Amino acid sequence: MSGRKWNFNPGPSGLPEPALEKARESLLDFDGTGIGIMETSHRAKEFDAVFQGVKERLARVLGLPADRKILFFGGGASLQFSVLPMNLLPAGGQADYVDTGTWAGKAIKAAELVGKVNVVATSKDDEGKFPRVPSPDEIKTTGGAAYMHLCSNNTIAGTQFHAWPDTGDVPLIVDMSSDIACRELDWSKFDMAYAGAQKNLGPAGVTVVIISDRLLDRCGDSLPMLLNYKAMAAKDSLGNTPPTFPIYMVGLVTQWIEDQGGIRAVEKTNRAKAGLLYGLFDDKPDYFRAPVEKASRSLMNVVWRLPTEDLEKQLIAEATADGFVGLKGHRSVGGLRASIYNAMSLQGVEQLVDYLKKFAAR
Amino acid sequence: MSGRKWNFNPGPSGLPEPALEKARESLLDFDGTGIGIMETSHRAKEFDAVFQGVKERLARVLGLPADRKILFFGGGASLQFSVLPMNLLPAGGQADYVDTGTWAGKAIKAAELVGKVNVVATSKDDEGKFPRVPSPDEIKTTGGAAYMHLCSNNTIAGTQFHAWPDTGDVPLIVDMSSDIACRELDWSKFDMAYAGAQKNLGPAGVTVVIISDRLLDRCGDSLPMLLNYKAMAAKDSLGNTPPTFPIYMVGLVTQWIEDQGGIRAVEKTNRAKAGLLYGLFDDKPDYFRAPVEKASRSLMNVVWRLPTEDLEKQLIAEATADGFVGLKGHRSVGGLRASIYNAMSLQGVEQLVDYLKKFAAR
Repeated sequence: MSGRKWNFNPGPSGLPEPALEKARESLLDFDGTGIGIMETSHRAKEFDAVFQGVKERLARVLGLPADRKILFFGGGASLQFSVLPMNLLPAGGQADYVDTGTWAGKAIKAAELVGKVNVVATSKDDEGKFPRVPSPDEIKTTGGAAYMHLCSNNTIAGTQFHAWPDTGDVPLIVDMSSDIACRELDWSKFDMAYAGAQKNLGPAGVTVVIISDRLLDRCGDSLPMLLNYKAMAAKDSLGNTPPTFPIYMVGLVTQWIEDQGGIRAVEKTNRAKAGLLYGLFDDKPDYFRAPVEKASRSLMNVVWRLPTEDLEKQLIAEATADGFVGLKGHRSVGGLRASIYNAMSLQGVEQLVDYLKKFAAR
Repeated sequence: MSGRKWNFNPGPSGLPEPALEKARESLLDFDGTGIGIMETSHRAKEFDAVFQGVKERLARVLGLPADRKILFFGGGASLQFSVLPMNLLPAGGQADYVDTGTWAGKAIKAAELVGKVNVVATSKDDEGKFPRVPSPDEIKTTGGAAYMHLCSNNTIAGTQFHAWPDTGDVPLIVDMSSDIACRELDWSKFDMAYAGAQKNLGPAGVTVVIISDRLLDRCGDSLPMLLNYKAMAAKDSLGNTPPTFPIYMVGLVTQWIEDQGGIRAVEKTNRAKAGLLYGLFDDKPDYFRAPVEKASRSLMNVVWRLPTEDLEKQLIAEATADGFVGLKGHRSVGGLRASIYNAMSLQGVEQLVDYLKKFAAR
């Protein structure tokens, strides 16, 4: 680790060191061109090779069907909360949304500015918390809905979908910002997914949108290009200057996933990492209280409580000083959270678990 | 230059080497935190110091009045072509636009999707070219217009405003994407300016919006946060994850401007650089044809023609091989262009001028 700390931040979060090292080499001279990667024109053949390579590699790593287009936007996933209904919720239509917490709720509010929204399922409990995600059979589509939207992983609540609703003819659209590329998925189930890069794919500053051709055909035509899926696809995301360096980083991170052995290998490590933490909580449930129902536990954001808030504060302070940063739970829910995205190594989680055991023993 | 080439690309373009070197040091360990700059949470105190520092330094370097807010958006300046009228062109209102070429024209088209646009001046000639910008007295505001918009520097035509229209009570809004921070300006004239970072401020992936409090007060309330100047200002651009690394780079580039002696010193160098190229053209007008009227010549994008297109192709090919890259004019107008943004050194332009002289002599 050479002085580097264990970064459990929820995002922006740790990036694979090989990707950072490669980026470092490219800042002043990208691949012997005599020009740094950030200084390279988005119209240059060198950048085009990067750009096409990122798309091809990402499609290969994720296992996308051939009819899926990959688009790159600025503005973060939050912008897509609005762009999505602007494109796909037609006047007089309606869309189905599943409410699983803060970010899903923001997507709902943004869509309500555009048109009619049906919240077809929620996992909010009587205390206003979201300790689980709805099971597939709780989620029913509305006849004629333009699409159904859900958030696959909820960073604040620490929940994740592990099974998907049957939406029939209604396209399923998933905000995968915090768990894209964490596990193998059957992408034929999803007509669209989007993800801010800054958890599993790269740095903040670019959002990946993956969309099927049949959904593109349904998009409106009249929106400005940078808010228009059809126009962005027609221009291959290059109608104006894209966020070139963040896109380059997505390529390096995706390369790192391939070098690990692909999604299958990354998923195996992710399950081992999460298993270590949840195993500890299940062994010592009186000390480590895991608020999330077992079937909804996230592989990416592991949340827990200690017996008292004072102990939680003490743990956060001591762990930060000892090189484990970002363990504070979201301010809206308190407690502790370890965000263990792809770039967090098994070794890092092992060390955290040891640390927690010792803390509990004192 | 240690193997680095002279980068005359129109953007993304060259960045100051000290900024790139500092960024390189920060990729795996930012200021001894044990976490790389891209891996740092936008909620961390370390990033907050960066973020507030960027805004303060940029305000100081540009010489902004105290009532101007600096906002950071993703999506490029092209997104602002739409966001601007969505915020400031009310239903039933109208806005004045000046047409000075491709990018000004795109801003006009985007505004026309939102409301009534008056093109109050154009510098298009009979051949459809834009060899100048309108003089201030050619530009008249429409009574009651919500604002007047112009593009201060036109990268494709190679023109730049050196005097500003008197818009009276009508707020003047300027797209400064390709010349922000190139010269001292009296910012009290501009109620708003915006600029994609990727020419004079940093890498692609962030757009700076500078807006007066009085104009913020006029913005609509109903737009989604990421398209809403008032909401972005209320959240200090941190309502969602901003493009953290591009913003960090803007800070380093702005620091470099201060280290040069500030805008005044940078402007002096810019005038010297442009003077060398235009001086050559004026000395040898039969060989180097400068299509832009003298009063409208750009300090940033210097365009010229050679006697034949074959000679132009030959020059571009030879210069590229000899380490001068990016000299090809925009595909819509042809010819040659040297983009000499702040980061291009006087030495680089001297070498280019020597090279052009030798080419002409052969």
